[in-house]
Amino acid sequence: MSFEAAVHAQAIELNRLALDMTAAAGSGHPTTSMSIGHLVTVLMFHTMRWSPEYPDYPTSDRLVLSEGHAVPAVYAACAKLGVMIGKDPSKRRKLTVDELKKLRDASSELDGHPNPMEGFPFFDAATGSLGQGLSVALGLAEAAILDKTDRRVYCIIGDGESREGQIAEALDQLVDRKLINVLPIFNCNEYGQTDRVSPQQSAETLAAKLTAAGFEVKTVDGHNPAQIKAAFDAFAALTPGKKPMAVVASTVKGWGAESVQGNGWHGKPPTGDQLKRALAELEQKRVELTSSLTSQDAFTIQPPADARTPDYATGELPPLAQTMKQMDMESVLQAGTLATRRAYGIALRALCKVNRDVVALDADVSNSTFADMVRKDASMADRFIECKIAEQNMVSVAAGLSAAGKIPFVSTFAKFVTRAYDQIEMAINSGANLKIVGSHAGITLAADGPSQMSLPDVAWFRSFSTVKDHRGNPGCYVLQPSDAYAAYRLTEVMAEYQGCCYMRTLRAETEFIYNDDVVFNLGGFEVLAQGRDLVICAAGYMVHEANRAVELLDKAGVSATLVDLYSLPFDTDALLDLVQANDGKVLTVEDNYGGGIGSAVADALVDSGDGFQLKQMHVRRIPKSGRTIDDLLKMCSLSAEDIKKNAMQLLGV
Amino acid sequence: MSFEAAVHAQAIELNRLALDMTAAAGSGHPTTSMSIGHLVTVLMFHTMRWSPEYPDYPTSDRLVLSEGHAVPAVYAACAKLGVMIGKDPSKRRKLTVDELKKLRDASSELDGHPNPMEGFPFFDAATGSLGQGLSVALGLAEAAILDKTDRRVYCIIGDGESREGQIAEALDQLVDRKLINVLPIFNCNEYGQTDRVSPQQSAETLAAKLTAAGFEVKTVDGHNPAQIKAAFDAFAALTPGKKPMAVVASTVKGWGAESVQGNGWHGKPPTGDQLKRALAELEQKRVELTSSLTSQDAFTIQPPADARTPDYATGELPPLAQTMKQMDMESVLQAGTLATRRAYGIALRALCKVNRDVVALDADVSNSTFADMVRKDASMADRFIECKIAEQNMVSVAAGLSAAGKIPFVSTFAKFVTRAYDQIEMAINSGANLKIVGSHAGITLAADGPSQMSLPDVAWFRSFSTVKDHRGNPGCYVLQPSDAYAAYRLTEVMAEYQGCCYMRTLRAETEFIYNDDVVFNLGGFEVLAQGRDLVICAAGYMVHEANRAVELLDKAGVSATLVDLYSLPFDTDALLDLVQANDGKVLTVEDNYGGGIGSAVADALVDSGDGFQLKQMHVRRIPKSGRTIDDLLKMCSLSAEDIKKNAMQLLGV
Repeated sequence: MSFEAAVHAQAIELNRLALDMTAAAGSGHPTTSMSIGHLVTVLMFHTMRWSPEYPDYPTSDRLVLSEGHAVPAVYAACAKLGVMIGKDPSKRRKLTVDELKKLRDASSELDGHPNPMEGFPFFDAATGSLGQGLSVALGLAEAAILDKTDRRVYCIIGDGESREGQIAEALDQLVDRKLINVLPIFNCNEYGQTDRVSPQQSAETLAAKLTAAGFEVKTVDGHNPAQIKAAFDAFAALTPGKKPMAVVASTVKGWGAESVQGNGWHGKPPTGDQLKRALAELEQKRVELTSSLTSQDAFTIQPPADARTPDYATGELPPLAQTMKQMDMESVLQAGTLATRRAYGIALRALCKVNRDVVALDADVSNSTFADMVRKDASMADRFIECKIAEQNMVSVAAGLSAAGKIPFVSTFAKFVTRAYDQIEMAINSGANLKIVGSHAGITLAADGPSQMSLPDVAWFRSFSTVKDHRGNPGCYVLQPSDAYAAYRLTEVMAEYQGCCYMRTLRAETEFIYNDDVVFNLGGFEVLAQGRDLVICAAGYMVHEANRAVELLDKAGVSATLVDLYSLPFDTDALLDLVQANDGKVLTVEDNYGGGIGSAVADALVDSGDGFQLKQMHVRRIPKSGRTIDDLLKMCSLSAEDIKKNAMQLLGV
Repeated sequence: MSFEAAVHAQAIELNRLALDMTAAAGSGHPTTSMSIGHLVTVLMFHTMRWSPEYPDYPTSDRLVLSEGHAVPAVYAACAKLGVMIGKDPSKRRKLTVDELKKLRDASSELDGHPNPMEGFPFFDAATGSLGQGLSVALGLAEAAILDKTDRRVYCIIGDGESREGQIAEALDQLVDRKLINVLPIFNCNEYGQTDRVSPQQSAETLAAKLTAAGFEVKTVDGHNPAQIKAAFDAFAALTPGKKPMAVVASTVKGWGAESVQGNGWHGKPPTGDQLKRALAELEQKRVELTSSLTSQDAFTIQPPADARTPDYATGELPPLAQTMKQMDMESVLQAGTLATRRAYGIALRALCKVNRDVVALDADVSNSTFADMVRKDASMADRFIECKIAEQNMVSVAAGLSAAGKIPFVSTFAKFVTRAYDQIEMAINSGANLKIVGSHAGITLAADGPSQMSLPDVAWFRSFSTVKDHRGNPGCYVLQPSDAYAAYRLTEVMAEYQGCCYMRTLRAETEFIYNDDVVFNLGGFEVLAQGRDLVICAAGYMVHEANRAVELLDKAGVSATLVDLYSLPFDTDALLDLVQANDGKVLTVEDNYGGGIGSAVADALVDSGDGFQLKQMHVRRIPKSGRTIDDLLKMCSLSAEDIKKNAMQLLGV
C-alpha cells in the first residue's frame, strides 16, 4: 500500500474509532477529532521518533494536543499502536481498541481531555482549557536544549483556540528564543462551538499573522498525506539560524462523514441512525481512497535516541551567611535587614549552582523579583528564561519544563501571577513540579497602588491546599517568609519538594528574625513569643507589625503568643494546642483580603468543636496608593496599634 | 506660536512636571511619561472633543491609558487644563499644578496608576496591570455605538505591554466588530523594565502584525506634532466600511532629557543633581524647539456633543412562569426540571426586553451558557457581543461597557472565567458594574473532566466578599442558585444591584425547589427544612444532594435543618441563630475545593466565640472524568450517603 493510501486508511480508522468511543461515552468531540485524523496519523505512525512501549521515554519526540477535546484521535492511535497506559508506572499495560469504549468512565485512564496523571503518560500535560498547549511545548523544547537532546515537539492547536492571547504570547516567545525544535500546527477546521471561527483565525489570516511574527509558514491540506509529510520533513530539516516554522493545515471538521460536518456538530457524538450513517460515509471514503484494508505495514516508527543518565549530582544549599560571603555581600547581612525577595534571588542563584535541574523564568521584572541574580550569572544564564510581559505563557512553559524533569521557578509580582491562575490550575492538574514566587505581595508595596498589589491571592492558593494532589500531598503549599533566612531556606525546601508551591515575597526591607540554624518545613510554623492570654498568627510582613504589637500589649499587661504561620497548610494539632494554652483566643493578621490565614485557622478551630474564639484582621477595603508602608497599614487598620486594639477587644479588656 | 512649537512647548512642560511630581513622590515612572508627552498633548489639548469641566461627560471622547504607569503625563495635562477631580461628585474641584506634588500620597486623588474610584473621573477604568486597556476602550466604543453617539476612544499601549496576549485578543475583536471609533496607539519607546523590548514588539514588527491582522497602520514619529496630528485626523475621517486604524509611534523613553534615557531608568525618578540635569536638558530642548514660553493659545479644545437623556425606561421582570409562557416553553416548566444555566438565559433575554442597558457577552459557548437566547433574538441581537475564545478581553470589554453606563453580563464556563481573574479584579478596582455568570460549575459537569470544572472559584470570589468596595458594599457577591426560579430571580437581582456579582450555574437539569413567590436577596439564604439536630448548609447542585441526605437522616432518626446558602456573604446573625437552635452543629457541603462556603461559615462561627462545631464537606481530590454526576459525587465523597455519614459522625451517632 502506498504511504498516501496507508495514511488515509489509518486516519479513517481513527475517525471510525472516535465516532465509536464518543458514542459509547455519550459525550465528547468526534468531529474535532476527525479533523486531525490525518495529522495524528502522520505524526504518530511516521514522523515522530518514539516508542509506544515507553510513551514517556526521555528522548522521545512529543505531541502536545493543545485543543484537548480532540483527544479521541490520539486515544485511537494509541490503541492501534498498543501504547502503554496505567496510573502506576510499574503496572502499565497496552491500551487496546476494546478499552476505547471506556472513554470518560470514572475507572478509565481515557479522561475527557488529556490527563497524564490519571494514567496516560503519552501526554506531558493536562490540556482542555484552551490556548495553553503551545507554551507547554515551548517548555519541553527548552528542556530538550538544556539536556542537549534533539527531541522535537509537535503541537496541534485549534483555529478557534488560537484566539486565546496566550497563543500570541507563545509564538512571540518561540521566535525570541529561536526554537527550531518545536512545531506549531494550526488545525483550521473553520468551526468553533457556537458558530464559524472568526475570519481573524482563518487559515489565510493565521498564515499572514505568523509570517508577520517571523515564521516560515507551510500551508497544507490537512487531509493530504504527502503535503503533511513534506511540511514535517521540512521542519525536521531546520538548522540553527533558520526561521522557526509553523504549519497551517486546512481541515474539515468531521472529515470523511458529510452528515456530521458544518455547524451544530461541535461536541456532539452521533448515535443510532446518525452514527450508522456517519460510519457508512467513512466506509465509502475508505473504498474511494484506499485499495485494501487498514494496514500499518507502510509505517515504521523510528525509535527515540538512547537516553543518557545525567552526569551531574545535586548538592546542598550552603547557609545564607556562607552564600552571602561568597557573593561579597556580608555587609548586607550585617546591616540587619534584607528584603525577602532579594533573599529569594540569592537562594535561587545558589540553588542553580548546586542543582542543574533548576530553571528560572521571569516576566520582565527580574530586577524587582531578584530572579536576575540567575540571569546575570554567566555560569547559569542558560537556565534563565526571559518571558517578557506574558505571564500566562511563562507558567505553561514552566509546566512543560517540569514535564521534562526540570524544577522551574517562576517569578513576577504576586499581583501579575493572577494573570496565569488558569494555567497554574492546569499545571497542578498535570502534576507539575511548579514553584511560583510572587514578589511585592500584599499592601506593603504601598506607592504603586492596588493595580500592583496581590490581595485575594492567599485565598485562591489556599483553596488548593485543602485538596490532595495525585501524589497525596496538598495541591499547593502557600509560603510566606517573614525574613531573609526564612525566604532563603524555603526556596530550598520548595526545590526539594515534588509538587506545586506558591511563595510570597516582599518589596520591603525587613529585619532579620531567624538565623541559619532555624529549620523551615512545609506545613510548619514558628513560635516567636510564648505568652498565655492569646495567640497572634501572622505571616510575611505582618509578623514584624505583630511583633511590635506584642511589645505594646506587654506594656499593657497582656501576654501574647506570636506565631509566624509561614506555611499553609500547617500543623493543625500543634496550633490547636497552643491556642488551648492561650485561653482559646486567636487573632490573625494578614496584609491581604479575607479567606487566607484567618479562614485557615477558623477551619481548624471549628472542626475541633471546642469553644475557641477568633478575630480576623485582614484588608477590608480596596486599598489605594500611599507613600509609605505605614500609610498603608494605617489606611487598612493593620498597624501595630490596630493589632493591639483588636487583641484587647478580643480579651474584653 | 505655530501648532508644532506649541505642542513641543506643552509636551516639554508635561515632561518637566512628570519629573517634578515623581521626584516629590519618591517613586513613579517619569521616563515612560516623557515618551508620551507629545501624544498626550495632541490628544488632550487638540484632538479630543471633551471638557475639562466635566471629565466624565457622557459624550466626551475618551483616553484609556493602558500603560497605566505613564500616568504622570496625564496628571500633568489635567493640572494644566484644570480638570475636575474629587471622590465625591458633588464636591469636585479643579486639579492644580501645585497638587501634582501630592502624587501617590494616601490623601491624594493622584494614585500611582489610573484609579477613577479614588477621585479621578477623567479615567474610565483602573489600569496598571498591563495589557487590559485596549479591551476597556473596545467596551467604551461598543457602548457609544449602542448609544448612537460619535464618541471616539483613544488608547495608548506600551510596546513591552503589547506582549500580553490580551492585546492580540482585543485587536482581533476590534477587527471582527469593525470598530472605527477606537484607536490603538502603540507607544514604542523600546525599553521595558529590565531590558530592551523584544524585537517581536518593535515598531516594525508591530506594524507588520497589525497589517496582517487587518489594520490600516499609521507609523509616526511620536514626537513629531504634525505626524501625530495627521494620524489622528485620518482616524477621525474614517467612515463605515473602512479598515480600522492603528497608530505605531516611535518614541524615546525619557524624551528631552538624554541623561535619563536608555536602560536602567524604568520606574526611577531622578533626584538631586540628576533631576537638575534632566530639567536643564529639557529646558535646552524648549529653547531649541519653541520660540516663546509655554502657551495654550494655539490650542482650542472642542467640546463634546450635548448628551441626550435616554428616552427609555426600565421595566419589571415578569414571573418565570409568565416568561416561559410567552416563549411557548410551558411544557418545560411542567416537566419539573430545568438547568439553572438555561433559566439564566431565559432571564437574561427577559431582562434585555425590559432594560435597554443590559448587554450580554460570551466567549463562543453561548449555546452552553444559554446567553444565546439574547444572541438569537433579533430584537436584542445588537446587545449580544460575541467575544470568541478570549475571556480576558471579554471581561475588560465589559468593564468598558460598564464605565459607559451599561450593565454587562459576561458568561462562559465557570472554569474559563479563571482566565480573566486579574481583569475581574481590575474591574472591581474600577467600580465596574460587572455581572459574571460561570456555567458548568463544580464537579457535576462530570464527563469532560477537571480541565472544564471550576473548583477554587468560590474561594477566590469569596475573598472579595470579605472586603468593602468603594460604595461600601461587598467587593463581590457570590451567588449559587439551586433551581431555575432562583437563577431567574437572582439574574434580576444582579441587574438591579450596582457592583460586581459572580453567579455559578449548572450543566445539570435540576428539580424545582422554589416558585415565583419566593424572594431572593443578595446576602440572603433559604431554610428548606427545619430540624433540631444540625444545620446542613449547601448551595447549587449540592442542595439537591443534601435534600436527599435529609431524607436519609430522617429515616435514621436525625432531624436536620437544610439551608440553601445561595449568597456569599450572607446574613451571619440569622445563620448563627439557626445553628444555635440546632445544638451548635453545622455541616457544609460544596462541589468545589475548600475556602468557600465552609470557610465562610467557619469565619462566622469562631467570630462569635460560642462553642460551635463545623464539619466541612468539599472536593478534596483533583477530580477526573466520570460519565454521570453520581460517579463524580461518589468519587469526591459528596453523595447523599456521604452527607448522611458525615452528619452522623458530627452528631457522634
